[in-house]
Amino acid sequence: MRHIARPTLGILGGMGPLATADFYRRLVQRTPAGSDQAHLPVLMWADPAVPDRTAALLGEGPSPVPALVEGARRLRRAGAGCIAVPCNAAHAYVEQLSKATGVEVLDMIGAALEAAARRTPGLERVGVLATRGTRLAGLYERAGARLGLDVVQVPVPVQEEYVDPAILAVKGGGDLAGPERWIATAAESPKGRGAQAVVAACTEIPLISRAASRVLPLIDSTDALAEAAVSRLWNPAVAVRTGGRTG
Amino acid sequence: MRHIARPTLGILGGMGPLATADFYRRLVQRTPAGSDQAHLPVLMWADPAVPDRTAALLGEGPSPVPALVEGARRLRRAGAGCIAVPCNAAHAYVEQLSKATGVEVLDMIGAALEAAARRTPGLERVGVLATRGTRLAGLYERAGARLGLDVVQVPVPVQEEYVDPAILAVKGGGDLAGPERWIATAAESPKGRGAQAVVAACTEIPLISRAASRVLPLIDSTDALAEAAVSRLWNPAVAVRTGGRTG
Repeated sequence: MRHIARPTLGILGGMGPLATADFYRRLVQRTPAGSDQAHLPVLMWADPAVPDRTAALLGEGPSPVPALVEGARRLRRAGAGCIAVPCNAAHAYVEQLSKATGVEVLDMIGAALEAAARRTPGLERVGVLATRGTRLAGLYERAGARLGLDVVQVPVPVQEEYVDPAILAVKGGGDLAGPERWIATAAESPKGRGAQAVVAACTEIPLISRAASRVLPLIDSTDALAEAAVSRLWNPAVAVRTGGRTG
Repeated sequence: MRHIARPTLGILGGMGPLATADFYRRLVQRTPAGSDQAHLPVLMWADPAVPDRTAALLGEGPSPVPALVEGARRLRRAGAGCIAVPCNAAHAYVEQLSKATGVEVLDMIGAALEAAARRTPGLERVGVLATRGTRLAGLYERAGARLGLDVVQVPVPVQEEYVDPAILAVKGGGDLAGPERWIATAAESPKGRGAQAVVAACTEIPLISRAASRVLPLIDSTDALAEAAVSRLWNPAVAVRTGGRTG
């Protein structure tokens, strides 16, 4: 078999860990590979020591930037050529991260809104379910402005009563039936304000978004990042040159 | 917060990729952490270039040892102190891997049989659903002998007609309803030969073992490895000293 260049995807994860596992699973499922050997090479660093992004963005906690930069350098040293960060709020620091390390970082926010536009013909107004950090940093508002989309956040009481506790529940483990209902309730708000679709704009939310997807067409930011990674790194020539058995 | 030593778990994965994602998810779910920050630091290297283990064990393909050794060294260099390999067949090479690199490698086979003994009072005979490589290497037979357990494999026609195609179907992606039925059918065989429990002894099988678990109490080797990793590396002092917000 001729050697085919296979760039390695780095995953800077752990924010949170379950969302990182979910991202890697979706990446594997979205890769059009028919055997183990045809998949993307992936390096993951799940660093639980990254300070909370929302607390930092609210000015209530230390900056996650040093840990993110250290993590990206570790991944680059170990061979990653391009990095996915499956955490929306961390994207407030992505430009800084990319400049400090010289590593290409995939844009999850842009990928999510582009996926929303692709899947919702005539999309003009899109709702967002996000952490308070992502809201405060205006990540979706800025990306929406670039794409000509009107971005709608939920009112603060809905954020505090439904969205924040649901995200915390996923991070804390435990039963997720209640949190799934809360996210569906939160999705009623952008619907009432004329949004034609809603983005699960925190990587914990896709784990509890089934009921919400019956309220409005739901775009999953984790999935959008996985799609972006496959379209950036997948080389179809690999699939036909590799084979495999049962492991 | 006082610094607490947090050893990093390495995951030498990609064999196959979906099984690796499943292992990381189970590891996260089995970690008694209440916030992102309380989880284990994890480095994963999912290397699709590891040659097929079963083909090598059958003498029909190149050895995976050089790729496994390279992978373990890469993880050690990047900071991993202890490595989990979520692939049963790869355990035929684990001693060699550990000797060549000096890295501690968790024993998935022993962990799976110990979990079987713990969960099945009076266990004497245990069935195994595995790849042909794992069978040929006698991995479960040797671990069973150490633990005083009689290990029963399925007859070759059952292996060829049900177990092998089911594992290949998971690796190839696609619909898994048929493969789930095949694994349930395969589990009838150890039941008929007096096994009191059956081990899903290939990391693809837990993804399609729900129906089989109604035939015999089923022990999941992926889960057993996750348990072993948590019990080896988890430091309960971390949980009470860390907190988090919504990311």
